[in-house]
Amino acid sequence: MLGHDHEDQVCSVARALEAVGQRWSLLIMRDLFVGVRRFDALVESLGVTRSVLTRRLAHLEEHRIIERVVYQHSPLRFEYRPTAKGQGLLPVLAGLMQWGDRHYPHPAGPPRVLLHGDCGGEVDATSVRCVACGERPEFEEVHALPGPALADPSAGHRPDVL
Amino acid sequence: MLGHDHEDQVCSVARALEAVGQRWSLLIMRDLFVGVRRFDALVESLGVTRSVLTRRLAHLEEHRIIERVVYQHSPLRFEYRPTAKGQGLLPVLAGLMQWGDRHYPHPAGPPRVLLHGDCGGEVDATSVRCVACGERPEFEEVHALPGPALADPSAGHRPDVL
Repeated sequence: MLGHDHEDQVCSVARALEAVGQRWSLLIMRDLFVGVRRFDALVESLGVTRSVLTRRLAHLEEHRIIERVVYQHSPLRFEYRPTAKGQGLLPVLAGLMQWGDRHYPHPAGPPRVLLHGDCGGEVDATSVRCVACGERPEFEEVHALPGPALADPSAGHRPDVL
Repeated sequence: MLGHDHEDQVCSVARALEAVGQRWSLLIMRDLFVGVRRFDALVESLGVTRSVLTRRLAHLEEHRIIERVVYQHSPLRFEYRPTAKGQGLLPVLAGLMQWGDRHYPHPAGPPRVLLHGDCGGEVDATSVRCVACGERPEFEEVHALPGPALADPSAGHRPDVL
């Protein structure tokens, strides 16, 4: 999001946005979070060109925010997964989701709800804490399930998109 | 951050990024949050051109994320302040700050620490909750004070930048 002249800025927000502030980067992370992890599925979900997606994935991989994991050996096929560092962006994505839910609401209700896999309780997006059991679940225990707007067949959505 | 073809996407993250995902927008919100609120001060703090800043501020004002407030009548002068809607982005900014602190650390320590104005306790950036008193302070009660990296005279920082 910043030019190279800002790389030395003494600001953690600016440094974070150097890594994930480019167009598409946070939406790629959103897709990886909800389970869209293969190149072709990302192209379709995002409506981005293959060349732009290639560049964005390479940038995120250089920053060790995502990693390639083999899911098929013959022929060799990879998918992309958030690293532990990438998983640390969950509060940022959850915060954007909650803010979007509140200020740009879908008429049918929230597109996604965050649930705690262990107990099924809803996860508060601000605190990333389960409202049922009070725990703060790890990344892999938070499931972003389709909410009312994505369960509404008139909404014209693609089910793999938040 | 998205093209216009994504405005109807059933996704609250995408809708949020339509409003604040453009280059500079979240850094403008960071500056307003720490008290840099006048046009010339924003130009200097961000190193952005006046024409780009004008467009970004107009976009944020259209979305009612910021508002202009008169601070001088003769001649008439405005400053920009986050609205209640804009203040709702605090968890997103705090999340980016904490992630940047952790993964792109400054050698001298965090550039900013968040303190709860009422009790002076540190505010946890993930939960936006005061670790001393347990309250979740309102936007105006959270002070982003210079931390070790901004107190370090060798860091070459501008004191008004996070």
